[in-house]
Amino acid sequence: MRLLILNPNTSEFVTSRVASQARRCASLGTDITTATAAFGARIIGTRAELAIAQHATLDTLAHHAGTFDAVVLAVSYDTALYAAREMLSTPVVGITEAAWLTACQLGTRTGVVMFGKRVLPLYQELATLYGLERRIAGWRALENTAPYGDGDQTEVDQQVVSAARDLIERDGCEVIVLAGAVMAGVPERLQKQLPVPLLEGVSCAVAQAEMLVRLACPKPSTGSLAAPTERALIQVSAALRSQFGRA
Amino acid sequence: MRLLILNPNTSEFVTSRVASQARRCASLGTDITTATAAFGARIIGTRAELAIAQHATLDTLAHHAGTFDAVVLAVSYDTALYAAREMLSTPVVGITEAAWLTACQLGTRTGVVMFGKRVLPLYQELATLYGLERRIAGWRALENTAPYGDGDQTEVDQQVVSAARDLIERDGCEVIVLAGAVMAGVPERLQKQLPVPLLEGVSCAVAQAEMLVRLACPKPSTGSLAAPTERALIQVSAALRSQFGRA
Amino acid sequence: MRLLILNPNTSEFVTSRVASQARRCASLGTDITTATAAFGARIIGTRAELAIAQHATLDTLAHHAGTFDAVVLAVSYDTALYAAREMLSTPVVGITEAAWLTACQLGTRTGVVMFGKRVLPLYQELATLYGLERRIAGWRALENTAPYGDGDQTEVDQQVVSAARDLIERDGCEVIVLAGAVMAGVPERLQKQLPVPLLEGVSCAVAQAEMLVRLACPKPSTGSLAAPTERALIQVSAALRSQFGRA
Amino acid sequence: MRLLILNPNTSEFVTSRVASQARRCASLGTDITTATAAFGARIIGTRAELAIAQHATLDTLAHHAGTFDAVVLAVSYDTALYAAREMLSTPVVGITEAAWLTACQLGTRTGVVMFGKRVLPLYQELATLYGLERRIAGWRALENTAPYGDGDQTEVDQQVVSAARDLIERDGCEVIVLAGAVMAGVPERLQKQLPVPLLEGVSCAVAQAEMLVRLACPKPSTGSLAAPTERALIQVSAALRSQFGRA
Amino acid sequence: MRLLILNPNTSEFVTSRVASQARRCASLGTDITTATAAFGARIIGTRAELAIAQHATLDTLAHHAGTFDAVVLAVSYDTALYAAREMLSTPVVGITEAAWLTACQLGTRTGVVMFGKRVLPLYQELATLYGLERRIAGWRALENTAPYGDGDQTEVDQQVVSAARDLIERDGCEVIVLAGAVMAGVPERLQKQLPVPLLEGVSCAVAQAEMLVRLACPKPSTGSLAAPTERALIQVSAALRSQFGRA
Amino acid sequence: MRLLILNPNTSEFVTSRVASQARRCASLGTDITTATAAFGARIIGTRAELAIAQHATLDTLAHHAGTFDAVVLAVSYDTALYAAREMLSTPVVGITEAAWLTACQLGTRTGVVMFGKRVLPLYQELATLYGLERRIAGWRALENTAPYGDGDQTEVDQQVVSAARDLIERDGCEVIVLAGAVMAGVPERLQKQLPVPLLEGVSCAVAQAEMLVRLACPKPSTGSLAAPTERALIQVSAALRSQFGRA
Repeated sequence: MRLLILNPNTSEFVTSRVASQARRCASLGTDITTATAAFGARIIGTRAELAIAQHATLDTLAHHAGTFDAVVLAVSYDTALYAAREMLSTPVVGITEAAWLTACQLGTRTGVVMFGKRVLPLYQELATLYGLERRIAGWRALENTAPYGDGDQTEVDQQVVSAARDLIERDGCEVIVLAGAVMAGVPERLQKQLPVPLLEGVSCAVAQAEMLVRLACPKPSTGSLAAPTERALIQVSAALRSQFGRA
Repeated sequence: MRLLILNPNTSEFVTSRVASQARRCASLGTDITTATAAFGARIIGTRAELAIAQHATLDTLAHHAGTFDAVVLAVSYDTALYAAREMLSTPVVGITEAAWLTACQLGTRTGVVMFGKRVLPLYQELATLYGLERRIAGWRALENTAPYGDGDQTEVDQQVVSAARDLIERDGCEVIVLAGAVMAGVPERLQKQLPVPLLEGVSCAVAQAEMLVRLACPKPSTGSLAAPTERALIQVSAALRSQFGRA
Repeated sequence: MRLLILNPNTSEFVTSRVASQARRCASLGTDITTATAAFGARIIGTRAELAIAQHATLDTLAHHAGTFDAVVLAVSYDTALYAAREMLSTPVVGITEAAWLTACQLGTRTGVVMFGKRVLPLYQELATLYGLERRIAGWRALENTAPYGDGDQTEVDQQVVSAARDLIERDGCEVIVLAGAVMAGVPERLQKQLPVPLLEGVSCAVAQAEMLVRLACPKPSTGSLAAPTERALIQVSAALRSQFGRA
Repeated sequence: MRLLILNPNTSEFVTSRVASQARRCASLGTDITTATAAFGARIIGTRAELAIAQHATLDTLAHHAGTFDAVVLAVSYDTALYAAREMLSTPVVGITEAAWLTACQLGTRTGVVMFGKRVLPLYQELATLYGLERRIAGWRALENTAPYGDGDQTEVDQQVVSAARDLIERDGCEVIVLAGAVMAGVPERLQKQLPVPLLEGVSCAVAQAEMLVRLACPKPSTGSLAAPTERALIQVSAALRSQFGRA
Repeated sequence: MRLLILNPNTSEFVTSRVASQARRCASLGTDITTATAAFGARIIGTRAELAIAQHATLDTLAHHAGTFDAVVLAVSYDTALYAAREMLSTPVVGITEAAWLTACQLGTRTGVVMFGKRVLPLYQELATLYGLERRIAGWRALENTAPYGDGDQTEVDQQVVSAARDLIERDGCEVIVLAGAVMAGVPERLQKQLPVPLLEGVSCAVAQAEMLVRLACPKPSTGSLAAPTERALIQVSAALRSQFGRA
Repeated sequence: MRLLILNPNTSEFVTSRVASQARRCASLGTDITTATAAFGARIIGTRAELAIAQHATLDTLAHHAGTFDAVVLAVSYDTALYAAREMLSTPVVGITEAAWLTACQLGTRTGVVMFGKRVLPLYQELATLYGLERRIAGWRALENTAPYGDGDQTEVDQQVVSAARDLIERDGCEVIVLAGAVMAGVPERLQKQLPVPLLEGVSCAVAQAEMLVRLACPKPSTGSLAAPTERALIQVSAALRSQFGRA
């Protein structure tokens, strides 16, 4: 199968970090290509940037239409996830949704470690949108930008472990999810320091994407995820416009 | 005060319908200008179009920056409402949020009449995002495109009244909200046929916008609605980029 | 318009504090009169006093029937709010409901600062009754009676600021509501010390009352807020009895 | 033990109906006396009447202070239940709370049959206040005043049975609660026509009151149910005032 | 009435502790017999042991069929409570459900003190199953096995009092429930050190069981608690098999 | 990998139906063995049978300990799922949890078709336990035992399709889950008649089990899913006892 990893941020750094992890954990026979959003924030970190990225995500997907069997959105806000599911006929997986769903099968109470207190409400809104808010027993926001670079990760690693332990000790979390595309690969490094499973979204998403391709469910033809047809849009890219049922 | 009415759809028809109602109900001294999104769907009716409109909304707002004291987003999905509140330093009001909040003061159970069963989940997700889902006691989806034109509204009027009555009778609703920017002005026409208050968003939003301007609360400088600063974005309009703290 | 500010407490002090703030923030053309409950607690501070005040509130309203276009209940428990909405044909606004609804448009997470840990459950029951409990991200109870007098407010001001900051820091609140009629005017004094909007109910309620009068929605004639008709009551004041549809 | 049955309505008819059932189901050794509210509605049926009855309930309780070991509030709205628990040092039981709690031990899904669609929201607000809303799987509102008189009950009996069956069939209810003080004694008459337990509040409340007296828990001295002390009230009856800690 | 106290643990120690308290608080005329599970954990303390105990509970009940008018399950997990209600035609009371329901009539916010952080999620799942999760305002897990022996209880008593006070102070709890069959009798010892009611399940359960017997509600013949009929089971005890409608 | 499919029912028929489907959809390299519970109900259909099956499930797992890399519990109640996760060190997947989680990625509103109105509450309790109740927008209970035999399935197929369509039409469901181990293979037959994805648990569970094995998360060593150690049990099978940390 052909899996497209799409990074709704515009920074190639995230794309390559994610791609590398995706390739490490993909099944034999899964062919991975990547794409990076053409416009918008380097690293989405505000509501306004997220709003812009929704357009960028769909636009990039439209440009790659027909070249993949499934998509993984490699951004922890699962930007435009439902919109992409509506627009495309292939499975679309968000890394945070994938991690949270996987966590449900590994522990009865999920803890989330994320970066930037400012965006914590965005994750909580996502949990509520997904109807999973009762499964998440604790949140911890770290302030550290090291994961967005190639430098020394010792300090942030320690912060992550410490936050995770606190979630386990104080909130009774039984599985920890590291939110953020740049967390790809981190569990391999830190799992052994923690007494419960440590998940990040890219590995979960790749596995879920492969699973959904295998299940081969049809695209819904009714409801809020049915493909748009005969819609009129102006001033968007030709690739994007072609997704709305008019040439 | 200067009130900008922004239509995230790209159809001028909606803009002028909304502007006309806004002018009818604005206070003396409120100066109303309008703007229409420059790209995207004629009439937003799918998740993908809504995703695109989030960008278009912010882009249009950025182009009008500095010319208004408050904004009303004239689209029933309250497109990019939280993002606009983050980006701007003036109050931003969404017509559906405004109507639902106003309804809380008029009845203990709100009923919602909207158009297109397909998008019903989008409204319900909005109610959940706002934490108002328990206040909404019933939903009715009509399939009728007449409100998007200037033709005869007799049939759709009857459908609206009939749906509202059903919400009152069966679901015990005590106030009815008509969702949709094109519902502007409709309550004036239909209120007398119903035994409970009938609201639409534009009138509520204009009044709420005036109220917020009067309260003159400061822009938050912390949290998820604080203004973005020193953010790096590429390939967006100069006007929009200038909202992110870098010239 | 004629706005009645009704204080369900029996202490004139609160009435005059509230009236003064109401006059400061009312629109030109809003004529404010006040009323104070004729019986019950000086300052409502227990469930039993609140129960008595429900009767006192309606009784006082009945005595002023016909002299106002809208009512603001100037007590933080929104005493008898729904009952008054049922009994009267004019809009009725509660200061706490007004502040909480306004807060929804200013921040995604509301913090509440109130006085007296003992009555905290009463506020929480109110939030649940209104279906707004998910919007309130934190509560702080202060023990300080200074606001009920004209003495030095320095210490309590500091406590309020400190509680608000704690709500912002620890609970991620993006807007703060000061509960209590005696908080009227306090935000003017303290807002500049806080990085998010600071609201109190009287200003919000006056603005909302004016807005509701302007919207001119009809009194519901069905449901739990329809006017009582042909009801039999004994041993209540003639003014009150006349509100129940029998002369 | 001495059990006071207090009817917050002012109609003796309800009092005697309830007293009769209470005596039928009380334990040997339980001495029952009754009281009827001195002012307010004949039969509480509106929010405003309920507000007045809160005062009347406390006033009547105060007049009987010291003459009972427990109180049953014989009104389906559990009028002033929490306020009475705060004011008194004896157990206070509301008939609807008692029935709903008892129902939890008899079926996994409770159905409620009540009278007057208009007041349905009041019961639903009560269920939410009690945190029991998830246990109630269905509601049916009947319009019939026969239970408030001594006439033929055949028709209303049939309506009750029919509503109960519908709750069982369609909503999967496994226990039915008849709300309303006047339903006292009705289950004896109708239980055999139904395949699940049929409860009314008076029997449950008498049994719960006896149980609480037996458990002999102390009055809380902290929190929202602690006795009011040193409170200042004006223009209430001497009996009532004496409950607030000042002679 | 004949009351069976069934201990789903296999340790006689718990049985006799519970029986002793049950006899102390039962009404005159209540004849108490006890039973202890024949297989499974000495003291249930894991999910797997609880799963085994569900079978053991039903098996023991089946062996005592026909010898009792009501059952109390003397284990804090209320093991197999709903299953036993389905299988038997007599009332079945769980000690934790009984205590939590009783607490609803004594305080507006319940605090729970239990033993073993590991099993805290099990209690929280129980509260959610019962739809009572909103009534429980705080939880405290103690690590102390002293209550499972006859030794000195001074230290654990102090821990319990301290946890209860913390629930009152920090979480505003107005009634405290001690979870655990071995807590039988403890409130008598510690109540005087606490300002709010202190409950344990056995006393509540015995009282509730007597009350349910007195109410004499019929066994439901439909729904998820109706008796199994004509069911085919293999390799279970003859006594147990006979409960499923085939000889 | 070695996958054990365990049927907690005692009927071989279900085991072989499930095994057949599991083999059809397993990946190359997945070796499937099956086991059937040694005691309990032929087909679990009551709460009491489910209670017994919890023991049987663990007992059977214990007898197969060491022979598998993951387990699928092939019963729609996910019998003993959390207990098995605690007891074992390998992933354990329940077919209903697996289907509901998978459904989250395919539609925004899930509909459930199950057999036997009597057991509907059991599924709803499961959804609540999993914290997924808000994702399930509709339930339909069919009364038909044909799926438990090899006879003509035409009628029940039609009922399933009809129930699914009703969920789509009236409740807006966007994905349908058929609950019941015997539904294995049914979607292949009926999918083409429905406009949204149709899932059954066995296919989802096999895929999820393979995914979890691949993710290779460690067994938690703390919390409610940590392995029992040093526990004392009596009168259970030697195989089962050996799972509790004592030889």
